[in-house]
Amino acid sequence: MACKSDDISSMKGHAFTDHIFHHYSEINTDRIYMDYNATTPLEPEVIQAISEALQDAWGNPSSNYIAGAKAKAIINQSRENVARMVGGKAEDVIFTSGGTEANNLVLHTAVEHFRKSCRAAEQHEGHQNGCSGRPHIITSNVEHDSIKLVAEHLQMDGKADVTFVPVSKVTARVEVDDVIAAVRPNTCLISVMLANNETGVIMPVREICQRIKSLNKRHERLRILLHTDAAQALGKIRVDASELGVDYLTIVGHKFYAPRIGALYVNSPGTKTPLHPMLFGGGQERNFRPGTENTPMIAGLGKAAELVTSHLSEYESHMQSTKLYLEEQLRAVFKDKIHFNSHYPGSDILPNTCNVSILGPTLQGDVMTLPSLSYVCLACQSKQPSHILLSCGVPSEVAANALRLSVGRGTTEADVDAVVEDLRETVQLLEEMN
Amino acid sequence: MACKSDDISSMKGHAFTDHIFHHYSEINTDRIYMDYNATTPLEPEVIQAISEALQDAWGNPSSNYIAGAKAKAIINQSRENVARMVGGKAEDVIFTSGGTEANNLVLHTAVEHFRKSCRAAEQHEGHQNGCSGRPHIITSNVEHDSIKLVAEHLQMDGKADVTFVPVSKVTARVEVDDVIAAVRPNTCLISVMLANNETGVIMPVREICQRIKSLNKRHERLRILLHTDAAQALGKIRVDASELGVDYLTIVGHKFYAPRIGALYVNSPGTKTPLHPMLFGGGQERNFRPGTENTPMIAGLGKAAELVTSHLSEYESHMQSTKLYLEEQLRAVFKDKIHFNSHYPGSDILPNTCNVSILGPTLQGDVMTLPSLSYVCLACQSKQPSHILLSCGVPSEVAANALRLSVGRGTTEADVDAVVEDLRETVQLLEEMN
Repeated sequence: MACKSDDISSMKGHAFTDHIFHHYSEINTDRIYMDYNATTPLEPEVIQAISEALQDAWGNPSSNYIAGAKAKAIINQSRENVARMVGGKAEDVIFTSGGTEANNLVLHTAVEHFRKSCRAAEQHEGHQNGCSGRPHIITSNVEHDSIKLVAEHLQMDGKADVTFVPVSKVTARVEVDDVIAAVRPNTCLISVMLANNETGVIMPVREICQRIKSLNKRHERLRILLHTDAAQALGKIRVDASELGVDYLTIVGHKFYAPRIGALYVNSPGTKTPLHPMLFGGGQERNFRPGTENTPMIAGLGKAAELVTSHLSEYESHMQSTKLYLEEQLRAVFKDKIHFNSHYPGSDILPNTCNVSILGPTLQGDVMTLPSLSYVCLACQSKQPSHILLSCGVPSEVAANALRLSVGRGTTEADVDAVVEDLRETVQLLEEMN
Repeated sequence: MACKSDDISSMKGHAFTDHIFHHYSEINTDRIYMDYNATTPLEPEVIQAISEALQDAWGNPSSNYIAGAKAKAIINQSRENVARMVGGKAEDVIFTSGGTEANNLVLHTAVEHFRKSCRAAEQHEGHQNGCSGRPHIITSNVEHDSIKLVAEHLQMDGKADVTFVPVSKVTARVEVDDVIAAVRPNTCLISVMLANNETGVIMPVREICQRIKSLNKRHERLRILLHTDAAQALGKIRVDASELGVDYLTIVGHKFYAPRIGALYVNSPGTKTPLHPMLFGGGQERNFRPGTENTPMIAGLGKAAELVTSHLSEYESHMQSTKLYLEEQLRAVFKDKIHFNSHYPGSDILPNTCNVSILGPTLQGDVMTLPSLSYVCLACQSKQPSHILLSCGVPSEVAANALRLSVGRGTTEADVDAVVEDLRETVQLLEEMN
């Protein structure tokens, strides 16, 4: 949904955009970053942990000598740190290449588990366990592509039926009752993100899990597995897998100042909770995810998790107050020309996410298609308003002007002032041009 | 197959092993590494490339602003470097989390391609394209687990038939005629490693590809896809995918002084050569392998590939002469008590790999179960001689004593002298004890 970088060059040659480009090229080495929901820089301590491991722990963790043992110790420590961050046990953490793989692995597991349960039920000629037909997956209509596209692929391939429960156009949440109403006898998985990347809306995952657990107690049916993609929530709000009641929780390093790997929390994988590998190989990660371990990146993930565990409340309150200041300044400048796409009655929002549209007939889409100026953020393309915002009830002409400003641990009020001033100038220029 | 690190502690408490442990703990901070086939350290320039990217290119490569553009440029450069190393085009390189994923992806693709071709043939009611029944895969019986176990899993799941062509007990190679003889009408893939990790034997991949290409010209049959796992060959011998004639080639960073990621070479993926993704998500790697790119690791892989392209002949000749020196010294010390498990009539061997057994009734298995002393290498457990060596015709009692000594770019003759002297002392001690 983000504009392609080549969009910038395709705009050259117009008087207005040439002016903008002049400005753009002057300041592009010193811009303010406000797209922390897309990715984060790495914390210095995280870089240090990675660098040390690159130098000293390059041994193969499976090897029986010191170089390998050192790597193994780092991996074990990181596993404990990551587990602690999400309220799990070390054995619950399976390192993956990232969130995409973790999410894919959960859907793969659910389908495989259904298939194997059906086969077992057939062989024992016992009750059907709701195993007739295809497995059924429930998810929302605002998930990340690494859930959405996997689900669509399974559906297209005839391997699963999927219900994409629409979020409420009032609260922008997927509502618990709607999820429960979508349950079928062969439902094998419910996967709902913990917080949405565009609106910052926090989903009622805990309540969904509570309701489903009552259902799961009825022994005549196959257990419904519960997953949340916590990519956007970790490092921003408290996340505890056992409190939530999920079986699986996706962890994405680069959203909380860690490197580009991830992990999947699984509540006692292989015993309490099924986990069927997608890859086969050298036995690493207890065969759930083989491949020689990426020790330095795992070291970085562990360090970043440790920081989140220790400092979450500081991070959270800093981001929250910075975002509130941002929203105040935007209101002060744009007054009634502003609409927040991250405000929904009764819904909790991530402390760092402000999604805003500046209204006005002469601005239609243009604020968004400009190369961003002194700040960087996620901007929609005017021709394609975000399907997520539309799903949340944001009118098309408002969604077409949406900017997602997501602040980070180090964003200052001065950063906010600069961004708001820049946005004011841009809007003024656009209004004069049109 | 490597001993577990806990084997070390489980040996304590015996007079002899206590003596060894004393020695062991004195020197363990300063040991000579001779297990470059297991993993390699990172080149300083590679660490630098990774560190720079960690600092400066943490932006999301999909984002439309400078931080993202920088990351994208690094990834593009790395893709070109990796392509050049294997004689391919930039577009032929798909970054993966490692060799395990790359190998899994090839087998997945072959089965999917067969399935889709069958479906298409049925729909067009044309010729059968050899599409009746299950897809058939040919591989050798000495492959890495990330081929072997995937093939076994497909077989067990009823998704494919597999022929594991045994290597010759004389040459330790998989012989071309044996591969051709295994071809069936529904053969969809041949996957043979370029060089074996334990014996260093180089496989006749080019000749297999030539013969299969003649077969593939017969239009009445489904094309047989050709894959080689080049994990052990890259950085040691010249590897050119087009000269070999393969459709797919697996690239594993940490075997050539690069970090723990990998890539799959695919000859024009999606056009000349099918490639069916295992993961679905945000569209990265042209949808063949989505997930936010691991920019720093990709930067390191690209730098390491550049070094291989520029310096391969130096690396190769250094390793070759060091290995020859090692073999001479071993022969000088152990005379007729030595057997090289990496010497086979008519077979070419990797320049860095020496697999050796020291013979003698009192040594049976013991040299190998000792914690390695002043050097580290791959040692078999005496109770389980390597199935690979047995497959290559090495007698069980010889295989039980095998040590793989694999040298690297920086291994010196002084290192070799120290290792050989240490081995001499160990063997002497063992003979005195028994």
